[in-house]
Parts: sequence; C-alpha cells; structure tokens
Amino acid sequence: MAKEESNAFVEAHPMNGGDGPNSYAQNSQPQKRVMEAAKEMISEAISTHLNIDPNSGFNPSQPSCCRIADLGCSTGPNTFFAVQNIIEAAESKFKSMKQKSPQFLVFFNDHVENDFNTLFRSLPSTRKYFATGVPGSFYAPLFPKSSLHVIHLSYALHWLSRDPKDKSQSLGWNKESIYCTGKSKEVVHAYFGLFKRDMDLFLDARADEIVNGGLEVISVEKVVSFNLPLYFPTMSEVKEVVKQNKRFRIVSIGTLKNPSFVSTDQMIAAQLRATMEGVIKNHFGDKINIDELFSLFLKKLPESRHLINEEKYRKNIDMCIFLKTQE
Amino acid sequence: MAKEESNAFVEAHPMNGGDGPNSYAQNSQPQKRVMEAAKEMISEAISTHLNIDPNSGFNPSQPSCCRIADLGCSTGPNTFFAVQNIIEAAESKFKSMKQKSPQFLVFFNDHVENDFNTLFRSLPSTRKYFATGVPGSFYAPLFPKSSLHVIHLSYALHWLSRDPKDKSQSLGWNKESIYCTGKSKEVVHAYFGLFKRDMDLFLDARADEIVNGGLEVISVEKVVSFNLPLYFPTMSEVKEVVKQNKRFRIVSIGTLKNPSFVSTDQMIAAQLRATMEGVIKNHFGDKINIDELFSLFLKKLPESRHLINEEKYRKNIDMCIFLKTQE
Repeated sequence: MAKEESNAFVEAHPMNGGDGPNSYAQNSQPQKRVMEAAKEMISEAISTHLNIDPNSGFNPSQPSCCRIADLGCSTGPNTFFAVQNIIEAAESKFKSMKQKSPQFLVFFNDHVENDFNTLFRSLPSTRKYFATGVPGSFYAPLFPKSSLHVIHLSYALHWLSRDPKDKSQSLGWNKESIYCTGKSKEVVHAYFGLFKRDMDLFLDARADEIVNGGLEVISVEKVVSFNLPLYFPTMSEVKEVVKQNKRFRIVSIGTLKNPSFVSTDQMIAAQLRATMEGVIKNHFGDKINIDELFSLFLKKLPESRHLINEEKYRKNIDMCIFLKTQE
Repeated sequence: MAKEESNAFVEAHPMNGGDGPNSYAQNSQPQKRVMEAAKEMISEAISTHLNIDPNSGFNPSQPSCCRIADLGCSTGPNTFFAVQNIIEAAESKFKSMKQKSPQFLVFFNDHVENDFNTLFRSLPSTRKYFATGVPGSFYAPLFPKSSLHVIHLSYALHWLSRDPKDKSQSLGWNKESIYCTGKSKEVVHAYFGLFKRDMDLFLDARADEIVNGGLEVISVEKVVSFNLPLYFPTMSEVKEVVKQNKRFRIVSIGTLKNPSFVSTDQMIAAQLRATMEGVIKNHFGDKINIDELFSLFLKKLPESRHLINEEKYRKNIDMCIFLKTQE
C-alpha cells in the first residue's frame, strides 16, 4: 500500500477538538445551515442515483449492508446530521422499492490529529448504524476496493493538502495576502495547480473505493474567507477537473440556496477560531497569542461585516456536486 | 438496533490513555509477552481453521478483503502486534494455497472512553492494512452481520460488564476482598453468574458478526491479580459456557507456556497502575490520591512478591481458545 508515502506530505489542520467554548463542536452552526440547505438535493440524488444491490451484504445470504463514509468529519455534530440525512434518504428509497431496509455501517474519517475521542463520545445514542472512525488524509487511499456505497464530504475539499507555495519561492510570494485573492496570476496558478493535483489524488482513491452504483456527494464552500491552504474553486473549475480525471461523471451539480446567516460578530469570530486556530498555530508557532488575535479580529470585524450581506458575495456561496463512477 | 440499550448498563474501565509514564502504552509488557507466547498457536489455528472465500471482497469482481477485529484493543502497541501476527499468518496461508494475498481491513475496538486519539497516532507507519476504530462495549453488537473473518481478544474477557454485586446486597458483601477470592460461595456464584451472562451476550453478538469459515481467538488471563469487576474462569468453566451457549464450537484450546516474567517491583506497580487507575477512580472518586496509593503498594509489594514466582500460581497462567461457528 502506497498509503503512507502519499500521506507523508499532507498537512493536517484539525478543527479545534473537545467541546469547550472554542471547540468546533460548539462553533459550526454555519456548516450545519449549509447541510440543511443541501438536505433536499441529497435526498433527491439518493432516490434517483443510488443503487444498492439487495445482495450486497457481507455474505449473499445476509441482509444488505449500506456502507457510508463521511470524509473530513471533524468532531461532530454536523457529521451526524449529514449521515442521518443520507440514511433517511436511503431507507426511504428501500421502502419505496418494497425492499427490506439494509444495515448501515458508517465510517467517520478525518486526519489522524482529529479529536476522535470527542467524536466517539458525541455519537447519537439513538443512532441506527454501526459507527467506526478512520484516521488519515482523504488525499490517499483509506478503504478497501469497492467497499463504499455513499461517500460524502462537506466543507472539506477546499482544504488543500499543503501550503501551495513552493519552497523555492520567496517569503513575500503572496504579498500580504494569506489566501488566493485572484490578484496575482502566479498565485492563482499555484493554488489551482495544487487543487487540481489534490483532486486527482482524491478522485482516483475514491473511484477505487466506491461500488458500482454508488454515489459521491461533495459540497464545496465558495464563500470568501480568511484562509491559508484553502482554495475555493468555481463551478467550471470543478467540472473541468472531474472531467479531466476521467474516473467519475457528474450526475448532478447545483448551488445551494443562500442559507440565511444570522450571526453576531462574536459568533463569527468564534466560528473562525474553531476552524482556524490549528492552522494559525501550525504556521506561526505556539508563541502566537490566539486570544489576543481573535480579540483584535472582533474589534476590526464591524469594518467589513457588511460584505457578508452583499449579494455578490452571497450568490453561489456553496456548490453541491454528485458523482458516479464511469460505467 | 438494541445496541444502546444493551450498552447502557456496561461500565467502562479504560486503560490509562496517552503515552506518558503512567500510560498503558508504556506499561503493557506482560500482555505483550503473553501475545508472543500465543503467536505460534495463532499461526497454526489460522493455517488449519481459517477459510476465506477468494471471492469474499466487497464485490465479487474485486480482490478478497480479510476483515479482522481486535476487541478490547486499548491504546497499543500490543494490539498492533496481535494484528500483525494474524495478518502474517493469513498471508502465509494464502501464499501456500497459491492465492493472491487479500486486502486487510482491521477494526480496533474498545469502550467509547478509550483513548482512540493515542491509538490512531501510534498506528505503525509500515502497516499493510486499512485501519478503523470502533467505539463500544463488546458485550453488545458492534458490527454488521457476517462482516468479520477473524475476531481476536487478548486480556479483555476477564473484564466483566459491571460490578457483580447486586444493589440490594450490603456493602460488606465481599468482606475486605476486592475480587473473587473463592472463599465465599455467594460471591463465587455472583461472579460466575455474571461471567456466564456476559459471555452469552458476547458469544451471541460475535456469532452474528463472524462469516462462515471465520475464526475467533480468545486469550483469557488466569493470573491471580488485584481486581474488581474481573473474573478469571477455569478452563472447564470456559468450555461449559461456550457449550451451553451453542453458537460456537471450540476447535482448539490450550494454555500458554509460562511467559517469563522478569519485572522489577517498580515495573509491576506501573503496569498495575496503567490498567487499574481508571477502575479505582471510578470506584473511589477523584479524591483518592493515586500517587500515594501506588507508592504504598510499592512499599508492600516485597512481602508478596515471591508468590509471582511460585509454580502453583504460574501454572496455566493464560488460556488461548479458538472458536468457530456451529455449521
């Protein structure tokens, strides 16, 4: 398995663990709203495109077992919400076909540095599935061949495998920006190049892991945001990368209706901290005073707060893409 | 799934997490020696009794996928050693049958309170298998039907699901003993009764989860030890419980050759602390001074240290049992 080699270059930027005031678990409401907006599209795609062989159990004489992976799951609770959506849609499909509901096995995946202890302790006690955790980067193989029926990602694929800046490039390469603003051609080229290479690794690994008839659901965030190893592609860029890769075809793609953001400044700062504290510490080292940084951020936020509500920034905030393997 | 209901009564006594000086990861050498002693028996049992259908992949057109679970895995490194043993034996069997080596998917299971973060960070970088973590008590269902080829447990089944003392019984029930010494019939009855009930739950769950032709390997510790919700059955008790349960037959059972124990007093105290700190805190609350307790234990150890080397205590220290489903 070339897994370890492929994983070696991948940087991990786990969301804040635990369930304290700065944790991702307590500060991921916007991500949840996106998932709520995607719920209907997912149900429809599963109803139309997911085919599970009734004999797809681990043994032909056994009930079928639907295997679902959520990649980049973090610590919850959004991953549980996403998985529940998928299971309800699959159950409803089975019911409409007068087939017995399958067993469900769910693989929760994230970087090895993710706080799986918190994830496992937060598993819903009423869940109707067998739950497992899978540590490792999704830019490398994670599962045996043909083992998954549904692969889901939400708010994950815009995390690149590393900082796109080549080591040979000077420190001032991206000037004072800390993400791909689109102002410099050289920077766009580097970011998009890495996005394309990462997507190829991702699509190749998933194409091996998904069963015939399986469905891949990807939500990609497009909102302009504070970022470092992040790239927010346009819809045509995503289409182009999938087409060139040749392993999957897009069965459905759409933008989510603008989820309504009613966040206070404090909530925005807390949400940003929960997702970015890891990457900031990784970049600047432990000496940076995170409390002070976000206190300053909170003070400066009102100056740019109006941008969040401007139509041009809110349009096409998120894409939802459904892929099947080429048959 | 009745999983949660069955899990509700189960007490969790995780080994000490992390990899610091009091951790299980740093203080589990005796358990490793037991596994080394069991290695040959496991290889032989796999060679003789494990049958994997070459078409047992997730999809008939795919390579076969051998699925292995280690139950009660704790934080490593012993679980990695056990899994490696099993994989090497299975690969060697496939080679001798001139079949292509399968892919391996390994499920590491322990209570939800186990330190899975440390387990995942310690996964061997050279592993040739896909790794997942499964949180939950093994006295309840953990996996889909017919999903496992090899189920392994080592140093785990002597942990009962709870303190066998009925709530209606008086505080002085087991006098000053903290484990089943065999002096009181009432106590033996309660301990053995719970052991039998737990084993039934365990065997029923596993019988559903193992494939036809799969193999269950159980090592049971018999060494007399400081304990609370622990029961160390005799070989005939184990045989009787498996026979009465009717789901499995014993294909092989044996005692391990005495692994040589060359531990200093400090090592013994540290090993005991790594496994027992959780259960002690659970019983006495956080107010107990664990450092002081084990410092006192270390002082008193020389009085009874000679018992460890006496033949009657060292004989039949550990049993290794191989089970297959009734066909």
